[in-house]
Parts: sequence; C-alpha cells; structure tokens
Amino acid sequence: MAKYNGVSKSVIQRLPRYHRYLKDLLERGIHRISSTELAQLMKLTASQIRQDLNCFGGFGQQGYGYNVDALYEEIGNILGLNQGLKAVLIGAGNLGMALVNYINFNEKGFQLIGIFEVSEKLIGQTVHGVLIRSEKEIEEFCEKHKPDVAILCMPREEVQRCSDRLVSCGVRGFWNFSHHDLFMDHKDENIVVNNVHLGDSLMTLCYQVNEMDRT
Amino acid sequence: MAKYNGVSKSVIQRLPRYHRYLKDLLERGIHRISSTELAQLMKLTASQIRQDLNCFGGFGQQGYGYNVDALYEEIGNILGLNQGLKAVLIGAGNLGMALVNYINFNEKGFQLIGIFEVSEKLIGQTVHGVLIRSEKEIEEFCEKHKPDVAILCMPREEVQRCSDRLVSCGVRGFWNFSHHDLFMDHKDENIVVNNVHLGDSLMTLCYQVNEMDRT
Repeated sequence: MAKYNGVSKSVIQRLPRYHRYLKDLLERGIHRISSTELAQLMKLTASQIRQDLNCFGGFGQQGYGYNVDALYEEIGNILGLNQGLKAVLIGAGNLGMALVNYINFNEKGFQLIGIFEVSEKLIGQTVHGVLIRSEKEIEEFCEKHKPDVAILCMPREEVQRCSDRLVSCGVRGFWNFSHHDLFMDHKDENIVVNNVHLGDSLMTLCYQVNEMDRT
Repeated sequence: MAKYNGVSKSVIQRLPRYHRYLKDLLERGIHRISSTELAQLMKLTASQIRQDLNCFGGFGQQGYGYNVDALYEEIGNILGLNQGLKAVLIGAGNLGMALVNYINFNEKGFQLIGIFEVSEKLIGQTVHGVLIRSEKEIEEFCEKHKPDVAILCMPREEVQRCSDRLVSCGVRGFWNFSHHDLFMDHKDENIVVNNVHLGDSLMTLCYQVNEMDRT
C-alpha cells in the first residue's frame, strides 16, 4: 500500500462518509456521478470534493464525472478496508455487546477475533461466533493471534492499565469508549487512539437545543 | 439563559470535555487549578483554554487560576444541563437499549420520557422505569408530553419518514444513530441534528492503523 503523507485528519475523517455515499449510489444502481451531483447529495461543495480526492491522486475525469464503482473501490483501498485488521473487544457489557451486534466489522476493515471480560457470568458464552474469554487470557491470546486493535468498553478505572497491557502485547490501535480520554504520548509513537465520547455528543446537542431558546 | 452568539461549533464541541475534566478534578478533591495545569491534563495549550472560555465571558483570575467548582457549574449552565430537556428514544434494539443502559441522561441534560418500537415483542416492557410503547403512539404521546429531542436508533430506511413525523410533533433536536445522514435544511431552521456514525469512526481507525504500515 502507498503511504499518503501529510493528508490532514479532517480529510481522512471524511473518507468513510464518501465511502458510505458511494455504496448507497451503487445500491441504487447509479454508476456515474458528477462532482456537482455528489456535492449536492452530501451537502458539500464540488470544489471541496475535488480537493479532498486530489489528496489521494484525484479520480474524476473532466466532462465525465466520477465512475462510482471505481471510486468506491479506490476509497476502500485507501482506507485499507481489505486488509482484514484483527480486533479484540475488551468488556462484554451492554455497550460492548451492542457494538458487536450493531457494527459490521468486516465491512469496516476488521475481523473481530476475541472478546475479553472480567465477569464470570459472561465468560464462555459465544457472540456472533466469537468466544468471550477471561481477561486473564489477554497476553496468551495476543501472543498467539497478534491483534492489531482493541475496542475498549470497560469501566474507566481500568482503561489505562488495560491499554498498557495491550500495548505490551503489540496492539497498535484503540477504539476507546471508556469515558476516559486515552493518551498514548508517553509511549511509542506508533499507536493510534480514537476516543469516542457519546456523552459529549449528547451534551453538545443539549447546548444546541437550549441555544435556540435563548434570547 | 443568555444567548451566546457566534461561538464556533468547535468551541461548543469542546465544552463537554471541559465539563468532564472539571468533574474529575472535583472527584479527586481539587478545587483550584491554573490554566497551565488544566492544559497539561487535557493536552491543550493554556492559551487555547483561555480563548475558549473567553467566548463565554472568561472565568480565571490572574494569579489565582480557575475555581474548579465555579467553572464546573458555569460550564454546566452554558451547556444548559440543568434545563431537563425531554427526550424520546425511537428504536429499542441492541443499540437503543445499550444507550439507555450506558448513558446517564440526567447528567447530560436530558430526561428520557418515552421509548418507541415497532416490535410487538418489546412493546410493554419497561427499561430503567421507562415504558416501551408502540411507535403508532408517537403523535399522541408527543402532543401530551412535548419532547424536545429524539434519539434515533431505527433502521435507516425509516429514519427520514419518522423524523418528519417527529418534527411535525414539535421535536427540535435529533441524536441520530441510524447509518443515514439526517438533513433538515428543507424545513424549519430551528432544528438541530447530531449524526453519530460509529462506523465512520471505525473506518478512520482502519486508515490510521494501516497508514503506520505503509512505506
């Protein structure tokens, strides 16, 4: 895979959205679209779309527009969705189980290969074909199966210690839902963290709705 | 409540994070902090913190720093967490139920007053003291209880039609998890939408982990 140096984080964060809209178009039987039409659909400007895609080489043809099939595949390649990164889930509580049931990991570039829990009641159960194991087995499992990323759905008190263990086991990416910002800058630089704070998003909505009432 | 005109969306989106860190400090018994210390904790710069808070009047005192209790309360007021906005959840599947179990709505400024579902199997059950009702009852319920916002956890095919119904019922804010970008710009401007795309966040992580391997 080619390295894309210097592409800004905001462009990268828009790529999944392009991928989603292109998939929709294909499902609706649309195989060719102009940047103006795509812009209208996505509530962007045609120039922003061209700028974004130019970061990766640009894909449109003057006077033809975009070949939806080719662009969909190309963006999938840029995201690396076909690389089958290996993921483990830590914490099989309500949120962890909802993610397993709600997210199509394969479609997003991951295989879920293991789930780890402290609760004896859950250990030994199987979810979508994946066994829930004791968190004590993390090291042994990681040595054998070499997961790339971990999805953290455990209580916040445990997240720093557990992520340190996972980094020692070679995990390089974290999707963190644990109500606690995970920072990795005291360690190896080759680790990425996406902190997801659903509560922050809800509080922002609270502000926005209240703001409409303010005079 | 005072209206805060012209505060940028990125500042507003940082407010919940300040609120979260200040709550942590209080729980650790810390009642006074300098902007430099707060900046280190949050991996920001002291100047960004001062700039952000100045949008709302500024709260620090030269040579003293921030009074954590006062700033926590003030940011809660700015967010409007004490206004008790009324929320309904549409869709009591895996994700909807995980949100109800995982998110402390009261702490984030909302009271969850109703849950609506199409599945007969779920209707009539109670979750955290809230009855799951048939989605056919939405209009009648809204007329009586006037919810401010709706949390959308239904399949994407239904989201546009259902949000139109809710807007007709006076709902002014949407927290949308339905795999479909909800746009409201063809309607009344006084509606806010937060689209949450967990899959996009996961695909971004996929890019970032793959990018480390690219040469």
